[in-house]
Amino acid sequence: MSHPVPTEDPSVDEQETVHRRVVAGLRAALRPDQVLTDAAALAAYAHDDAEWAPFETPMAVVLAEDEGDVVAVVRLAAASGVHVVARGAGTGLSGGANAVARSIVLSLERMTRIVEIDAAERFAVAEAGVINDTLRLAVAEHGLWYPPDPASYRISTIGGNAATNAGGICCVKYGVTRDYVLGLRVVLADGEVVDLGRRTAKGVTGYDLTALLVGSEGTLGIITRVTVKLLPLAGREERAIVGAFGSLRAAGDAVAAISASGIVPAALEIIDRTCIEAVDAWQALGLPHGVDTMLPAKVDEVGALGERHAASVAGLMVDAGALAVERAADAEEVDRLFLARRLAYPALERLGPVLTEDICVPRGAVPEMLTRIQVVAREHDVVIANIAHAGDGNLHPLIIAPEGDDAAKARAKLAFDRIVDECRRLGGTVTGEHGVGLLKLPGARAELGERVVALHASIKQALDPAGTLNPGKAFPA
Amino acid sequence: MSHPVPTEDPSVDEQETVHRRVVAGLRAALRPDQVLTDAAALAAYAHDDAEWAPFETPMAVVLAEDEGDVVAVVRLAAASGVHVVARGAGTGLSGGANAVARSIVLSLERMTRIVEIDAAERFAVAEAGVINDTLRLAVAEHGLWYPPDPASYRISTIGGNAATNAGGICCVKYGVTRDYVLGLRVVLADGEVVDLGRRTAKGVTGYDLTALLVGSEGTLGIITRVTVKLLPLAGREERAIVGAFGSLRAAGDAVAAISASGIVPAALEIIDRTCIEAVDAWQALGLPHGVDTMLPAKVDEVGALGERHAASVAGLMVDAGALAVERAADAEEVDRLFLARRLAYPALERLGPVLTEDICVPRGAVPEMLTRIQVVAREHDVVIANIAHAGDGNLHPLIIAPEGDDAAKARAKLAFDRIVDECRRLGGTVTGEHGVGLLKLPGARAELGERVVALHASIKQALDPAGTLNPGKAFPA
Repeated sequence: MSHPVPTEDPSVDEQETVHRRVVAGLRAALRPDQVLTDAAALAAYAHDDAEWAPFETPMAVVLAEDEGDVVAVVRLAAASGVHVVARGAGTGLSGGANAVARSIVLSLERMTRIVEIDAAERFAVAEAGVINDTLRLAVAEHGLWYPPDPASYRISTIGGNAATNAGGICCVKYGVTRDYVLGLRVVLADGEVVDLGRRTAKGVTGYDLTALLVGSEGTLGIITRVTVKLLPLAGREERAIVGAFGSLRAAGDAVAAISASGIVPAALEIIDRTCIEAVDAWQALGLPHGVDTMLPAKVDEVGALGERHAASVAGLMVDAGALAVERAADAEEVDRLFLARRLAYPALERLGPVLTEDICVPRGAVPEMLTRIQVVAREHDVVIANIAHAGDGNLHPLIIAPEGDDAAKARAKLAFDRIVDECRRLGGTVTGEHGVGLLKLPGARAELGERVVALHASIKQALDPAGTLNPGKAFPA
Repeated sequence: MSHPVPTEDPSVDEQETVHRRVVAGLRAALRPDQVLTDAAALAAYAHDDAEWAPFETPMAVVLAEDEGDVVAVVRLAAASGVHVVARGAGTGLSGGANAVARSIVLSLERMTRIVEIDAAERFAVAEAGVINDTLRLAVAEHGLWYPPDPASYRISTIGGNAATNAGGICCVKYGVTRDYVLGLRVVLADGEVVDLGRRTAKGVTGYDLTALLVGSEGTLGIITRVTVKLLPLAGREERAIVGAFGSLRAAGDAVAAISASGIVPAALEIIDRTCIEAVDAWQALGLPHGVDTMLPAKVDEVGALGERHAASVAGLMVDAGALAVERAADAEEVDRLFLARRLAYPALERLGPVLTEDICVPRGAVPEMLTRIQVVAREHDVVIANIAHAGDGNLHPLIIAPEGDDAAKARAKLAFDRIVDECRRLGGTVTGEHGVGLLKLPGARAELGERVVALHASIKQALDPAGTLNPGKAFPA
């Protein structure tokens, strides 16, 4: 008599048995307050900030407090044939941390220890749950600077930043998270712990597995510690230059002229009329009338050179037809000038659920892409606001559907896919900094092509043959 | 009746048959002048600049002229069960391009086309055989700069630079080759061609296979085209500051003080007494007497800030006890001050075959590491000269054995291993920029540990299951 062949879709009875066994195993291995199974917790941890992406209810949520907890959860999951979805603060925008079927959501938010700051060697080692801004402030006390600044920097974790290769506003000059990750401690799919990378300024020993793990969205290993490179805090003086334009085309010309000038701005953002109106309706900042597009920019060279660069950027904006240009050199004024940029996202969220796009086109194609987005908005009858890292070509069209309007939501999804297609036609990439997660799986398939997708699958197979870690994310299966 | 099991070590007859078939296949696929089998060519292409590492005589040398040639060679090799060792200019210093048994050496030196320079988007696409300096000069005409500057930049290729993740002098401020590679075209182990990476400023679509391939020494795929990020050429003014010190300790103190000052120099090199004497004996530069160590440094901020930084660096050198400090601000004078640094390697090669070390320790450990190297030199009775990227902690002890002195050569090898051990004890990495190749296989095993080595093997297995591409390199099997 033969044994029954295990199927992909176990019976409900079998599932319940596994579920009970997994929860019992977690309770045996961890303190009660570390294992959450109540409905509210399961719902709260079922997805990251990409609610539009699909998610399942997890079997349990575990709040790991140290590496041993992570190892215990991964081992139990591997032994039980269930999945582990690791997350930091859950601020992701692509569904990378959304729970999959038969999964344990493993939060590293309690692993908040800054293990080491070495001022002389200019690196820091932080547990995965350390908030980006906490690390930034801690290293600043040593005269050091951790540049990557995703919009979520006040709430997102360094582990999540590394797992998604987070970008931000200053990457136009200073690069993204990967450019600062020297090494990682990682729990592999079988629960073994490895240290990857280095602590020295340079190093080429073996394949760059650190770079491979950065941005892999918890599919190849779970990052428990990050060693980051730091820059000296000194040697920067921020100056803000904000231009107001009567048309998108004029603003686009200014971006092109600034890029071509040889000045590398420390920020070069763009916000469109829909954003400006939403911010003004909410906060009455007194933004100038008749403004279609604003370009908030920064330069950060010190002294006379910084002054000269700020003046050049302002001049290029005027030459491109800016209606008004404001400049600021002290920190408070710089913050004030960037207020509209900072308020744009929350102001838009007041209008309804926001589906956040994240495409990256050649810098020179930013005006054309924004124009095409306006066409998409019209054709699909949806509101699309635009904030963008213009200096990088990284655009975040924000598609807004009124709460409870399912038809609008359906149209928003169509618009999302259209934008991805248009981006590809302009030589862009389907995700500039948010990651593939779940939302960009179709776009990633089109961009990568069959063979490169197969390379991804073979690497996943090599590092996680049982598919324990966050299956179905980061690349199309 | 069973078939004979193929063995790892085919009989001599079988080998000769395969050899004849491979050479015939190459001649059928390529022009006669692209397939070299004469003894002189086989000897010339049998190894890179790491003659101390083992090498075999290849079956043939192929001079590829386009991607199609590379595909043809890889397909033939895969079908014949022989290996392909790809190389650029053969300037590697770790044996990464040394021929293995039953191999075709595939040189990409004739693939010299700069495919595209996009000044607005600041990237260039070059075939693998383009010389680093050729690319540098070509993009300079567009007002752009390709920073990575390995010592071999006048003769090494961009493909080889990418395959080894080459470093250089300016990486202390500007990073290494990987930091500039946006994308790669790669011929995989089965001959299929894929494009990895992107052309946009940012992008996180899928795993960073580009970063994985950079530095993989031709073991995972053969790089035929490289897309590199460029910086504006403007905004830099080089100033040189060269300090002469009476002791290694004083020079080390100066390096530490400069690192801690918040100034990031564009170069911070160190050359020791043995180098200085060798250069002076050869070129009579009139280097100051009683000098034990020299620190050639550069800063590159423009205008008053650059002046201030140069003055600060000079002041820190004086404070640390420099016997003399020279400064230069115009290009010719900067070159003159760096002459001793540039002549150090050829000056030492006049003394005998040089075994080049490449370790990277924490910056602060540079003086201690140099002291330990002196001890190793004494204990093993070998001459060791030191040139180093002091600002990165990346040291190149040059172990010199007189021509034909086999005992000295044996002692040099022991000294090489001892230096690697000492580097590891100081928290360093066994290769800072030259790569593992063959010379650093034992050191890499110690540094990576068993499980991380196994990860390497699993990735190699995933991308090159038949072991066609440069087997035995880059990581210990």
